Amino acid sequence: MGYFRENIEKAKGYEPGFQPSLVGEVIKLNTNENPYPPSPAVMKVLAEITPEQLRRYPDPQGNVFRRAAAEINGVGPENIMCCNGGDELLSMAIRAFCDENHPVAYPVPTYSLFPVLANLQNCKAIEIPFDGEFNLPAKLSTTGAALTIVCNPNAPTGSFIDVKELASLADELTGVLLIDEAYVDFAEVNCASLVRNFDNVIILRSMSKGYSLAGIRFGYAIAQPALIEGLMKVKDSYNVDAVAIAVATAAIKDQQYFKENIEKVKADRKELIEQLRAMDFEVANSFANFVLAKSKNSRAGEIYDKLVQRNIYIRYFNLPGVDDKLRISVGTKEQNRKLLTALKEILSG
Amino acid sequence: MGYFRENIEKAKGYEPGFQPSLVGEVIKLNTNENPYPPSPAVMKVLAEITPEQLRRYPDPQGNVFRRAAAEINGVGPENIMCCNGGDELLSMAIRAFCDENHPVAYPVPTYSLFPVLANLQNCKAIEIPFDGEFNLPAKLSTTGAALTIVCNPNAPTGSFIDVKELASLADELTGVLLIDEAYVDFAEVNCASLVRNFDNVIILRSMSKGYSLAGIRFGYAIAQPALIEGLMKVKDSYNVDAVAIAVATAAIKDQQYFKENIEKVKADRKELIEQLRAMDFEVANSFANFVLAKSKNSRAGEIYDKLVQRNIYIRYFNLPGVDDKLRISVGTKEQNRKLLTALKEILSG
Repeated sequence: MGYFRENIEKAKGYEPGFQPSLVGEVIKLNTNENPYPPSPAVMKVLAEITPEQLRRYPDPQGNVFRRAAAEINGVGPENIMCCNGGDELLSMAIRAFCDENHPVAYPVPTYSLFPVLANLQNCKAIEIPFDGEFNLPAKLSTTGAALTIVCNPNAPTGSFIDVKELASLADELTGVLLIDEAYVDFAEVNCASLVRNFDNVIILRSMSKGYSLAGIRFGYAIAQPALIEGLMKVKDSYNVDAVAIAVATAAIKDQQYFKENIEKVKADRKELIEQLRAMDFEVANSFANFVLAKSKNSRAGEIYDKLVQRNIYIRYFNLPGVDDKLRISVGTKEQNRKLLTALKEILSG
Repeated sequence: MGYFRENIEKAKGYEPGFQPSLVGEVIKLNTNENPYPPSPAVMKVLAEITPEQLRRYPDPQGNVFRRAAAEINGVGPENIMCCNGGDELLSMAIRAFCDENHPVAYPVPTYSLFPVLANLQNCKAIEIPFDGEFNLPAKLSTTGAALTIVCNPNAPTGSFIDVKELASLADELTGVLLIDEAYVDFAEVNCASLVRNFDNVIILRSMSKGYSLAGIRFGYAIAQPALIEGLMKVKDSYNVDAVAIAVATAAIKDQQYFKENIEKVKADRKELIEQLRAMDFEVANSFANFVLAKSKNSRAGEIYDKLVQRNIYIRYFNLPGVDDKLRISVGTKEQNRKLLTALKEILSG
């Protein structure tokens, strides 16, 4: 070929979790979807979409969503930018701040998309290993990176770093700190308040997990207006569509449904962790809608394969620090029960 | 600030056409939306969306759409890639092929997004001026650019370059030729067949104009599998959402509605051009859903301002080669009539 840039030619590309097309026949606990449906308000708004909304270009900034998200996060609409999923914000941030002379830094193991995006932008990725308990590495503050990303709660570990520690990191960094809070709805606190005091902090939020809307691709950034305005230059003019704006706005406005949904997932998570621990797995506390489990006696890859044979999909990462563990999305009570039964069979077989 | 890369810091960002939020009170002929609604099949599919489709991640490749688009274009699904609007494909192509040492080239005047994207990628943009009749500039074949973009039909001129000429260009170029066919549904022929013979051709298509779906953001690429696979590495994993995939697929499958819609727009375009010519405007033939009109006696900017005072929005570009002209989207018969009446008043006042 030879048409592509050298870094693209050599790139492997990101491998998303397997998406089986046969609904119902498989138990899918591999991509951290919320096991419960979105708010009924979402379906109501969807039913009210008019041909005119499809025919015309959407609001380029999705202002109706910006206002709703601002209110919920105690900031102004000028602090919010809509994105076509959280992934788009990660891509935009790396393109806005990083290049061959401006590296990105992040602790590892973490979301495996970060090195893929760095490679696409041809920027250096400075990877700082977590310790065994996934504490914030002190070295992260001295890399000199133009952009530092901390996924919090972290994927695929489910671990959480205190807001105060991230405030200190923001203070110490000379570049931008992007806190990927895709899973924060399942934690107890978040970092939105940091945006008030730090002009170098970007918070990433996703509607995929907490709001059960992975299908519509919607995320948003919270940051001071100067950062938002700069990121807006990088985004496609009409990056979020009219239906997605309407649906995401309805979902974020229904905070009562959201909170009840979150409490259910948290309760199921607690039970799943307890059951796994009772069954020979080491499982750290999780602040996300998944758990990371290490079998003391069996190989993670083997367990993964045997679950696939039973049409149960979880996630296995062949990455340092997690290649002995399995990441399991918290499912419905029924799904979790079936998973645990299968695991018992596999471990005793 | 100083957090952004220098080229981003200095960038102006793309200015999309004004999107008035008050539907019905304005006549909006400024962003080339189709004046007619999308296929009824679209509304049917939208009504059938389930909470489960929203809850789960979409198919990362949108294969149901790929199959439908492949059939219509006489290629295979492996020749198709879905995008979040045609703009996303332009952005991906520039990121995939261009950098500081690999320029992009295109004839001008053309879609004003091209230089914005080049600036974001920090690559050189080689702009080759069209002649007065917007013929393909011979120089375009010898720029040495990694990526050459030809918008065909061209925006904002509405002019069309023959398929044979573009085949010759593809043959002469050492880099990739991206033919932006966002408006091709309103022309008589298209370049899809070039993909069979040339491994360096990418065709861009949009569902926004011909299929009246600007609101859902959906476009696609047609190219040989090696180019599609490389571009897939650059795209976000889940770049098109579940609702958009379903809606776009329903629209492209309803070819009868599509063809009737196109014929209506073409007939209205013919009448609009005739009326404008009868009123002191020079108007070239158009192969798109807009016309480019030059008033022989009045300043384009002044006419534009006076139309805005009457709540009629068209587009004025302060760019060399078109700054004496007005770009008018073909509207409904009623909208076109009101525009012509307003123009008569303005020109006689």
